[in-house]
Amino acid sequence: MNIQALLQKKSVQPYLLKARYGLEKESQRTSLTGELATSDYPSCLGNRTHHPYIQTDFAETQMELITPVTNSIPELFRYLAAIHDVAYRSMDQVEMLWPLSMPPALPEKEEEIVIAKLDNFEGVLYRRYLAKTYGKRKQMVSGIHFNFEFDDALVQQLFNQQTAFTDYLKFKTELYLKVTRNYMHYRWLVTYFYGASPVSEACYFVDEKGPKEPVRSIRSSQYGYTNHEDVKVTYRTLEGYLSDIARMVEEGKLSEDKEYYASVRLRGGKKVADLADAGIRYIELRNIDLNPYEPYGISEEQVAFLHVFLLFLLWKDEGADADAWIAEGERKNNLVALEHPLAVTAFAEEGRQLVAELAAFIEQFDLSVPADMIVHLEQMLAEPTQTLAGKIYTDSQPSQQAFAVEKGRHYHTQAWKKPYQLAGFRGMELSTQILLFDAIQRGIQVEVLDESDQFVKLTAGKHVEYVKNANMTRKDSYIVPLIMENKTVTKKVLKAAGFRVPAGSEFADVQSALQAYPEFAEQGFVVKPKSTNYGLGISIFKEGASYEAYQEAVEIAFSEDSSILVEEFLPGTEYRFFVLDGETRAIMLRVPANVKGDGVHTVAELVAKKNEDPLRGSHHRSPLELIQLGTIEKLMLKEQGYTIDSIPEPETIVYLRENSNISTGGDSIDVTNQIPQGYKDIAVKAVEALGAVICGIDLIIPDTTRSADEPNAYGIIEANFNPAMHMHMYVYQGENRRLTKDVLDLLFPEV
Amino acid sequence: MNIQALLQKKSVQPYLLKARYGLEKESQRTSLTGELATSDYPSCLGNRTHHPYIQTDFAETQMELITPVTNSIPELFRYLAAIHDVAYRSMDQVEMLWPLSMPPALPEKEEEIVIAKLDNFEGVLYRRYLAKTYGKRKQMVSGIHFNFEFDDALVQQLFNQQTAFTDYLKFKTELYLKVTRNYMHYRWLVTYFYGASPVSEACYFVDEKGPKEPVRSIRSSQYGYTNHEDVKVTYRTLEGYLSDIARMVEEGKLSEDKEYYASVRLRGGKKVADLADAGIRYIELRNIDLNPYEPYGISEEQVAFLHVFLLFLLWKDEGADADAWIAEGERKNNLVALEHPLAVTAFAEEGRQLVAELAAFIEQFDLSVPADMIVHLEQMLAEPTQTLAGKIYTDSQPSQQAFAVEKGRHYHTQAWKKPYQLAGFRGMELSTQILLFDAIQRGIQVEVLDESDQFVKLTAGKHVEYVKNANMTRKDSYIVPLIMENKTVTKKVLKAAGFRVPAGSEFADVQSALQAYPEFAEQGFVVKPKSTNYGLGISIFKEGASYEAYQEAVEIAFSEDSSILVEEFLPGTEYRFFVLDGETRAIMLRVPANVKGDGVHTVAELVAKKNEDPLRGSHHRSPLELIQLGTIEKLMLKEQGYTIDSIPEPETIVYLRENSNISTGGDSIDVTNQIPQGYKDIAVKAVEALGAVICGIDLIIPDTTRSADEPNAYGIIEANFNPAMHMHMYVYQGENRRLTKDVLDLLFPEV
Repeated sequence: MNIQALLQKKSVQPYLLKARYGLEKESQRTSLTGELATSDYPSCLGNRTHHPYIQTDFAETQMELITPVTNSIPELFRYLAAIHDVAYRSMDQVEMLWPLSMPPALPEKEEEIVIAKLDNFEGVLYRRYLAKTYGKRKQMVSGIHFNFEFDDALVQQLFNQQTAFTDYLKFKTELYLKVTRNYMHYRWLVTYFYGASPVSEACYFVDEKGPKEPVRSIRSSQYGYTNHEDVKVTYRTLEGYLSDIARMVEEGKLSEDKEYYASVRLRGGKKVADLADAGIRYIELRNIDLNPYEPYGISEEQVAFLHVFLLFLLWKDEGADADAWIAEGERKNNLVALEHPLAVTAFAEEGRQLVAELAAFIEQFDLSVPADMIVHLEQMLAEPTQTLAGKIYTDSQPSQQAFAVEKGRHYHTQAWKKPYQLAGFRGMELSTQILLFDAIQRGIQVEVLDESDQFVKLTAGKHVEYVKNANMTRKDSYIVPLIMENKTVTKKVLKAAGFRVPAGSEFADVQSALQAYPEFAEQGFVVKPKSTNYGLGISIFKEGASYEAYQEAVEIAFSEDSSILVEEFLPGTEYRFFVLDGETRAIMLRVPANVKGDGVHTVAELVAKKNEDPLRGSHHRSPLELIQLGTIEKLMLKEQGYTIDSIPEPETIVYLRENSNISTGGDSIDVTNQIPQGYKDIAVKAVEALGAVICGIDLIIPDTTRSADEPNAYGIIEANFNPAMHMHMYVYQGENRRLTKDVLDLLFPEV
Repeated sequence: MNIQALLQKKSVQPYLLKARYGLEKESQRTSLTGELATSDYPSCLGNRTHHPYIQTDFAETQMELITPVTNSIPELFRYLAAIHDVAYRSMDQVEMLWPLSMPPALPEKEEEIVIAKLDNFEGVLYRRYLAKTYGKRKQMVSGIHFNFEFDDALVQQLFNQQTAFTDYLKFKTELYLKVTRNYMHYRWLVTYFYGASPVSEACYFVDEKGPKEPVRSIRSSQYGYTNHEDVKVTYRTLEGYLSDIARMVEEGKLSEDKEYYASVRLRGGKKVADLADAGIRYIELRNIDLNPYEPYGISEEQVAFLHVFLLFLLWKDEGADADAWIAEGERKNNLVALEHPLAVTAFAEEGRQLVAELAAFIEQFDLSVPADMIVHLEQMLAEPTQTLAGKIYTDSQPSQQAFAVEKGRHYHTQAWKKPYQLAGFRGMELSTQILLFDAIQRGIQVEVLDESDQFVKLTAGKHVEYVKNANMTRKDSYIVPLIMENKTVTKKVLKAAGFRVPAGSEFADVQSALQAYPEFAEQGFVVKPKSTNYGLGISIFKEGASYEAYQEAVEIAFSEDSSILVEEFLPGTEYRFFVLDGETRAIMLRVPANVKGDGVHTVAELVAKKNEDPLRGSHHRSPLELIQLGTIEKLMLKEQGYTIDSIPEPETIVYLRENSNISTGGDSIDVTNQIPQGYKDIAVKAVEALGAVICGIDLIIPDTTRSADEPNAYGIIEANFNPAMHMHMYVYQGENRRLTKDVLDLLFPEV
């Protein structure tokens, strides 16, 4: 089989760089000053045993962050970012993740290193065995496991172009075996570029000796985390690999299959033994040190390099004797790993040749890789200070510990800066970001089906739920939003169920609307288009209106819609009741954009100060919006006799807007605890009458101290099937209401 | 209490003409030549006992059509029209409704008049009693009962302006008593104008003698349907009315309360006796003869007259002695009823005065009434031939029977002309019209909540369902239409569930779409905007495309949407599967507009001929659309070498359109029975995977003789949450599928 010829086939080209990626990253939890954490795994993450994203590795302090399988590098990093955000904000805020592969200073007494407190007793037993066999300290090293799979379309296209193999699975296995052998032969290059564990911290090397000088990668060297020397496994064939491992286990050199640690693991079914039938489906690279310059321990360029390097290794001829080829690789890798971080590597010339070959390969196939990747590789070969180990070593003078703490704190600060956002998903609406956060935290798998449409898929075990806009779910019935979309129908349904809604009529032409004038003339009333929602075309007459004013209002409303409503005006304060699953979960009072005078600062200064609140931002990606000082605000100030340079009296509230929308800088005030139960019951029953499960319903209440049962104690003016949730969750004043958790409780009562 | 002063109060004005109306109309079922029907009540109407709209009166042949309470005259007539349509099309098509109050020729043997075969044995017993007491023949007379209620707002406003009454119910009762007494006094005027039973048919007067000459109204005269003479009831007070009726029952002069028949019945609670507590809520005028000139037995102008007349009678002073006042009215009415239809009435002068007063009253209060109503009343007073009785008498020469048959057949023809439409609701979409038809037929109450929005409320007992567009219901979940609205999400969900969907990708910018060219270049593919639905911006390349053609297609698609899809082209025939509640209910093949040549007629003639099909119409108010001969069609003809004047060879199919939409004249061909079960199962399972209950799903099938399990036997290209139903229900070819019945089965399994 001539793989180089196959790779050059035209039908193969579109699929060359298609692949699937997954990543597991371990990190130690520490204090903000770098001491190993003493706390348990965060309880808000639930039972870690089945958590798809956040587990514990060997120690209770050793978090393992796991991405799902992804189809692109950006998608991989989106999940990495989100899972990190969730991990950070699920831990106590005084804890951070240690950014280095080598653990922080370890306890002097080994028994103080706490093995992960798993429910699963087998898991605990296994860790006890590891502690006994390798020592707990060695188990505290962290790193990244990178799972890589060529896209099936690529393998299929290659298969279709050849005749040597008739069995697709055997063909695929052969490809991965070649790549694996080559990777094991050439992995010293990865160690040279990205090795990142030059020195250890206190109490790591206690029972055994470590390297005397700083090195490129303790973790990838003989001092790292490897099996004992008598564990030997061939990669000549899959059968050989499997039978060797089986023999090691039989002979007691390994406790079980999964104890076989090598720089590459062959992966297929659930267990190693499944590979015999299933063939190799993907490979797991285990030799990636944590990169402390990256918030998630690895850069996109590193992943892009690994990908194209693996493809290159599929292309590149390998040595005739597989075992010797790998043994040679192991030897070189150990040498490179133990070189001084600033030393020119012994294999610099071979490295330059390999990079040149790789560059030619990329050019030949016109592969899309990061612009400067090759340049960076060349620089690192030319200048050891540019390697990751070189940089860490340089930046760690005088103290690697201080360097690590500074990096760790920086990522910690970033994660807590805007606690309402979810890194990786910041392009989505805030409510969806928070829902995804809560889902990831609970161990519910998340998948974005359509980002711009806020469409996500949530999965817990076999239970799948689709959610749009964080609140549109399977739980509501189709007819419900259709009812709410139509103001007339909503009113009819609520009225028929006995709720107070503004009396009024719908009109389809100007003449019949004008004829109805006498019905409304003497009372407060509102004229509005039937179906527009943005306040356009609405006229409010709080105390009746002249015929001429009425006529004008009717015409304005008709300019927005072909039908209009004329309705009784209900005086009072408007409250948004957020009802979910038969309970009023939050009640909000929205107050127009305003500042409170102090007799010292100008309006402009007061606005600037109020805008410093980290909850305020723009484009609906923050729970509150920045208060503007535009034309409308200046006009509003003028009407009250102010300019932006006025200095309002102490305690004077100056309004900058008439409307109370949060989107124009209004304040969100949670009043859930202040509103009597009677009104909450009415909201719940009204939502029930509409048949809704999730609903934002707006009540006008003239006086909340009156009983909700009194005549005209309330009026319902609107019901919303897509109610904003984020404004309740991070409020300007009052209690935050984590409505996304209620949504998840509703959808996944079993989790 | 000065009611005239109260009526003039400003706050009362807007409510003067607000009222609620309900109507019950009896009609005999006959053959199309006017013989009394011998068939039973139509079984498709279900159990008549609880049917809200269509019941039987005394005889099995005597249909009683009942409107709900309505708030306007147009609404009343909308229901009347619809209920008539349903009644007609529920009867055998060789039956019609007899348009006269006097029954058609009755059987010579009284026992051949069949009492209504009610389930309810009490009902049967009561009718047997009536037959014995009054004779069956008299019970065969039909008429209209008109229920009238002043709007509560009017009564409330009047109440608020006075001080004589402190009890609202007593006040209201007093108003209705006055109106009733005045109506009974003046009802001769109604008999004069609208009396419509001049002569009887064969075998009506058998045991007793009737009038010797034609009259204005047999029904409203002493020969009509009245209690025996010894039944006397006062209208002086409600207490008196109730105690008189109770005494009559006690003395055996009436079998029960409801046997008391008078021209006006006082109505309140369920039983007569409930009135004591509830007060009078409305009144029932019982003296309205069927108007054979109107399809529903009464005209809108008649109802408008009755309304304004009742308001006028509320205004007008009454006689001091209530009993004498009514007795005087009875006497006059009997005289007028028995006058010859063409005779000037004895009370012509009083009639003219009353109409003048009425006209002045209308003018004083600026009441909106039909433009010519007063003129018509004046004409009738001036010219007896213009009265209803006068016209019928005139038109019935030489035979009233022939006149009645002609009228009856006309209404019958109208009702059957477009059997897919529902009179009264023709402004709504066809599917909704048919749904309403089926609901009315089954005795499910219908209410249109929003006509232009196709929003209806269906009620059976306490069970309420809301339906929009005839197929959007509570049974589907909210997330389902959102999934289907998004093509990418739909495909992801279907693909994840193992269904074949066109492979492809979504692109958000031109560059990434162009980069993907090699993936598609060699195969058939489609480029389309992500979310537009009308075929705009779609390019189909059945056998691949050049880069330039691809680039152009991409740009065209992006001109329609900000995201585009590039998808594999699936060859084959497209079928629409209509799935409801886990079953494929209909499968449709849509064929582009076409005609079949006969070697004789031109294309234009063939089109005209095909368009004669009563199923073809325009504006989606028919199951099929008229085939056009516009620019597109002419172009299409030209491409095939035809003009509209060409004479195609026999059996040659000439297409006038490329697209197969029914809306552009395409043919709908039901193929439900021709498609193998395997494909139906796939449609059902795919709809289940989408979570939908009602769904139109489009499958491309290259060859329906192949098993659905074979690779690539099908591809799913679209799922519709608002699938057209009407096209399945009246098809061009194949079997009609009454999907609205399936919707009702789904919503109301208990009915």
